[in-house]
Amino acid sequence: MLIEPYTAKHWPEIWDILRPVFRAGETYPFAPDIPENQARMVWSDAPMATYVALRADKVVGTFYIKPNQPKLGAHVCNCGYVVDEAARGQGVAAQMCVFSQIEALRLGFSAMQYNLVVSSNKSAVALWQRQGFDIIATLPKAFNHKRLGLVDAHVMHKFLS
Amino acid sequence: MLIEPYTAKHWPEIWDILRPVFRAGETYPFAPDIPENQARMVWSDAPMATYVALRADKVVGTFYIKPNQPKLGAHVCNCGYVVDEAARGQGVAAQMCVFSQIEALRLGFSAMQYNLVVSSNKSAVALWQRQGFDIIATLPKAFNHKRLGLVDAHVMHKFLS
Repeated sequence: MLIEPYTAKHWPEIWDILRPVFRAGETYPFAPDIPENQARMVWSDAPMATYVALRADKVVGTFYIKPNQPKLGAHVCNCGYVVDEAARGQGVAAQMCVFSQIEALRLGFSAMQYNLVVSSNKSAVALWQRQGFDIIATLPKAFNHKRLGLVDAHVMHKFLS
Repeated sequence: MLIEPYTAKHWPEIWDILRPVFRAGETYPFAPDIPENQARMVWSDAPMATYVALRADKVVGTFYIKPNQPKLGAHVCNCGYVVDEAARGQGVAAQMCVFSQIEALRLGFSAMQYNLVVSSNKSAVALWQRQGFDIIATLPKAFNHKRLGLVDAHVMHKFLS
């Protein structure tokens, strides 16, 4: 698997991966009916850097890195990761997470924080824990899950080194 | 004390209150040298609603309310408050906080979350606790305090009713 910086040519494949995830409304807080141009803005324009994971030239996953706060909190980064449904369970997210930590250090960040890990997304919670992230908060009823209604969400954190 | 919605005529007075607070770099994460137009954007344009606290027609405090996350997390609001240095210790922040909770409910929010209450700002932490907010996380070294360097920051939360 190769991981490389996003370029505009990747967008159609990325949108094919993001669209069903956002439409499902189970893991990301964006409006499930978010239009493509807004999704592109939040995923590829607003972040500091966006990446694609490629297997045989096909995009199988994508993630972004951005500062989690303005200047005086900008040493902590935030990332979002999505894996193509057909490529789940094959370690793609774990590899992207490892790579993102190296990139984050290179970009000058000293810690990584996920602000809203949906508690019902147990595979994600377990994956980030295996990657060394701690649950440092449980935000009560913070996520309005499309199927389950209001569920808790975690803040997860790791110092980078 | 009167609390009313912000209008553009209040901006010069608000900026006189915000400027020394942002320049100090001890409580808000914005770059201490944030230019006025950016400060105006984050304080009065980006939020859902901004308010001023008036005493004898003079602005003595200001706060904003905005959703803390996009759609599926948008039932939780976030607020920021600043009191004029000359009006501190007179209950202005407490009154703004009470008012903001009523307004937040009216705007349809069901909880309020502060994402980055700087731990060294002990009077603020104590004030929000008196207002019924719980510390639900301590983000390690999350704030680069201009005098103290890296200090912890709290996530504080309250259900509204």
